[in-house]
Amino acid sequence: MAVRNGKSIIFEKKIEIVSSAGCAGEMEEKGPLGTEFDRIFTGKELGKKTWEQKESELLRRTVSLAIEKSGMTAEDMDAIYSGDLLNQCTASAFGLRGFGIPFSGVYGACSTMALTLINAATAIESGGCMNAVACTCSHFCSAEKQFRMPLEYGGQRTPTAQWTVTGAGAAVLSSGTGKNNPVILAAHTGTICDLGIKDATNMGAAMAPAAKKTICDFMKDTNTVPSDFDLILTGDLGAVGSTLLRELAQKEDGIVLDGVHNDCGLMIFDMKNQDVHSGGSGCGCSASVLCSHIMKLLRRGKLKRVMFAATGALLSAVSPLQGESVPGISHAVIFEGQ
Amino acid sequence: MAVRNGKSIIFEKKIEIVSSAGCAGEMEEKGPLGTEFDRIFTGKELGKKTWEQKESELLRRTVSLAIEKSGMTAEDMDAIYSGDLLNQCTASAFGLRGFGIPFSGVYGACSTMALTLINAATAIESGGCMNAVACTCSHFCSAEKQFRMPLEYGGQRTPTAQWTVTGAGAAVLSSGTGKNNPVILAAHTGTICDLGIKDATNMGAAMAPAAKKTICDFMKDTNTVPSDFDLILTGDLGAVGSTLLRELAQKEDGIVLDGVHNDCGLMIFDMKNQDVHSGGSGCGCSASVLCSHIMKLLRRGKLKRVMFAATGALLSAVSPLQGESVPGISHAVIFEGQ
Repeated sequence: MAVRNGKSIIFEKKIEIVSSAGCAGEMEEKGPLGTEFDRIFTGKELGKKTWEQKESELLRRTVSLAIEKSGMTAEDMDAIYSGDLLNQCTASAFGLRGFGIPFSGVYGACSTMALTLINAATAIESGGCMNAVACTCSHFCSAEKQFRMPLEYGGQRTPTAQWTVTGAGAAVLSSGTGKNNPVILAAHTGTICDLGIKDATNMGAAMAPAAKKTICDFMKDTNTVPSDFDLILTGDLGAVGSTLLRELAQKEDGIVLDGVHNDCGLMIFDMKNQDVHSGGSGCGCSASVLCSHIMKLLRRGKLKRVMFAATGALLSAVSPLQGESVPGISHAVIFEGQ
Repeated sequence: MAVRNGKSIIFEKKIEIVSSAGCAGEMEEKGPLGTEFDRIFTGKELGKKTWEQKESELLRRTVSLAIEKSGMTAEDMDAIYSGDLLNQCTASAFGLRGFGIPFSGVYGACSTMALTLINAATAIESGGCMNAVACTCSHFCSAEKQFRMPLEYGGQRTPTAQWTVTGAGAAVLSSGTGKNNPVILAAHTGTICDLGIKDATNMGAAMAPAAKKTICDFMKDTNTVPSDFDLILTGDLGAVGSTLLRELAQKEDGIVLDGVHNDCGLMIFDMKNQDVHSGGSGCGCSASVLCSHIMKLLRRGKLKRVMFAATGALLSAVSPLQGESVPGISHAVIFEGQ
């Protein structure tokens, strides 16, 4: 049985990441983690006629790869948790419909990777599942089309805007394998934080208070400090949001994150030479970085304990036009390498 | 620890429905269950400027009422699981942001009520949560606007089309209260079924194979037959889908559902005198019926064992225009009155 401390959950079982796959597109290949991804897919390689279908295909191939790496098959999977940014999470529905795995749709905006991991870990802890997949994806073109402007329009982007990653991540979770896999020790499902930010092109600012709350609340719940972690990794706050997070944590909670904090949105692109403004974003940003680069470092012993605090902005293309602010959320998962 | 039989999960703990609330709009008040709902809200009573905001407010008030009826407060809730049909599930994000409860977004289209219940029950079984809320909602006007035509256009609807319910349902789950609450015995997370239906105005046909699969698979997994249940209640197959479900179950699995099966989409409206074509639909349809009428019957001993198999069509407004078929899914929860 898991134990609850405050709003944080400590798992009793060793919830193992048996295997994972992080895949991305050509723009991401040119970034600093280009050689870390399991696979790079060009648009041509993904085939299909539409960006939405390419996104589904990217997810399908990434999940296939993660399951293949686990040494098991889709039939061995008791559950798959997935969601994405497309309206009604259709990248997941269409990408995963062929697997025949019991499918639970999840929506956490860009924090979805953490939420699917929490759901999968909880299902394994409950005894209801032996093996479960957690995954998500995003695609630059389908996201721009749906949330912003037609790509053909070539609109100017603001300095605070982030670049939606074309990428996907998938992890196969299990327990009791007897192998030295990285494990999920604990999790923290976030609460919605809405400080009234109304600029939908500055999602880093909208999400930073949620990340601050989740990271600091987890530390209070579990009597931990930043130095207990080798890395505190936010999802995709980008440059603007990462600076705000560190300021907020220090000012409001006296917690200094400098030196231990990094952000997937800053890691995935070359911030100097790639034209991504405030950094990467999208469900596929933190998912592809976590399921490739970070999992490799945990497996190689280069990282021992990692807090992965993915972040999401809970808006739609309609809500800012109706005068709504942008609610933020952050869900955290604590990993330990064996 | 929960036990898994095939794809079905049998909970070890008594997962109790401590309280629930089902609320709806004026059109639903005129239906056969009009007096069963906990509250009826007119558009004026909900206030707010937009249909989307009214939907959020309907969810907010329904969740407030369910928590109030539990004798607890929002601070006592360890988790809230919610999702809806609005793009990026914004009815849930905006409706629930004020509660301060750890928020897990769920997407199951019209099957969302069952999926939130399964997630909440699993979290309680795992030990990670003591009390959890499962909820969802839909609104006729926001759904028509987003998925179909501007209401002002007054477009003709096809005979197979369903009418999106303005309604919401919320349930507070807990364990070990010592009271005689209805309990969740078991659950079955569905797999995606896509038989190639491309008519987005005939979602009953798209969802019927998924409902058939979930209901029949659960019975095979648990060695049960239709007569073990007082009611097998599908979400919102409507008239077309309900007929198809019974035909499919009999032809393909030899399981006769006649007499024990009913459908929330058929129960919520007066099928003769209300102009709803094939019946009700939307996340709020099965949610409002389950959380009011059905829970009352379970509490009063009028129903002993109920299989609630909510159904969802995993499409978006874009996917049929890109030539995609409509994938269906059905998630089941088994309730027992004490």
